[in-house]
Amino acid sequence: MSASSASVHPVEETPATDVGDVAPIVSMKNIEGMPGTRGGLALRCFQLGFAAAAFGVMAASSDFASVSAFSYLVAAAGLQGLWSFFLAVLDIYALLVKRNLHNRPIVTFFAVGDGITTTLTFAAACACAGITVLIDNDLDLCSVNKCVQLQSATAMAFLCWLTTLPSFFFNFWSLASR
Amino acid sequence: MSASSASVHPVEETPATDVGDVAPIVSMKNIEGMPGTRGGLALRCFQLGFAAAAFGVMAASSDFASVSAFSYLVAAAGLQGLWSFFLAVLDIYALLVKRNLHNRPIVTFFAVGDGITTTLTFAAACACAGITVLIDNDLDLCSVNKCVQLQSATAMAFLCWLTTLPSFFFNFWSLASR
Repeated sequence: MSASSASVHPVEETPATDVGDVAPIVSMKNIEGMPGTRGGLALRCFQLGFAAAAFGVMAASSDFASVSAFSYLVAAAGLQGLWSFFLAVLDIYALLVKRNLHNRPIVTFFAVGDGITTTLTFAAACACAGITVLIDNDLDLCSVNKCVQLQSATAMAFLCWLTTLPSFFFNFWSLASR
Repeated sequence: MSASSASVHPVEETPATDVGDVAPIVSMKNIEGMPGTRGGLALRCFQLGFAAAAFGVMAASSDFASVSAFSYLVAAAGLQGLWSFFLAVLDIYALLVKRNLHNRPIVTFFAVGDGITTTLTFAAACACAGITVLIDNDLDLCSVNKCVQLQSATAMAFLCWLTTLPSFFFNFWSLASR
């Protein structure tokens, strides 16, 4: 008597699709350098450092109050420092709680803020550069004025601007590429 | 004898899809203000006008050669004027032959060029602003120097920068939003 042998064939299990699944929140690409990333935090730290240096060196010079451009650099570097500090704190918070900061209103706010502060810092740096070049090269009055101090503060402001530009472009790019 | 009446129902004609159709060339959005549009041409004309005015007014001042920032403004306004003239001619050509200038390499070239010229123009305007404010407000030496002429050239350079910014942002935005 021959019994029919039952053969078992494995069946591929198809993944269950739950119709009730919540759709993922639309978020932007997580590029290193964006808010809430380590690169973004590093950029903010550099900005803060250079802004603080420009602020300190210029404020310590004896004649910053008598020249409008030097006072303006102190104000612009102060504003840039505060903005970068605020965003560095936000970045640390986002990294600690693993929160994504890449939704549209937040990135728009960051892009506008970065755009304003970077323009103000660059304007102040250029105004001070114009005056230091006038004093040093054109009038040769560095014996009277502390040129090295003024030039150092101007250089710090330019470096601050250079480190703010990537933050601005990252935010602007991710805003446009949605 | 009853004859069956044949009723005629209109059938909606479906558009013929030709498989051999050439796929449309990938192009960016045609926003007014982009290269090859009337808005873009208007922006270039404004830039050219303000750059020429800044160049002419500053070059006509007696002491522009003795101050580095004033010489730099003349150079920056000259470069900006040439760039805007070149792009205005390209816009006129594109409008006349109805050619689309919105492919990626061209827009990248325009965005980089606009970025460089707008930064140089803004830097020159800020440097001159710093010096004119120093002469006028801080040192009160307007009786010796032609302040109105210097301030007019600086204001023209700022207006030139303001009209270059939209061109840059249009190009940058369309580059990012592809």
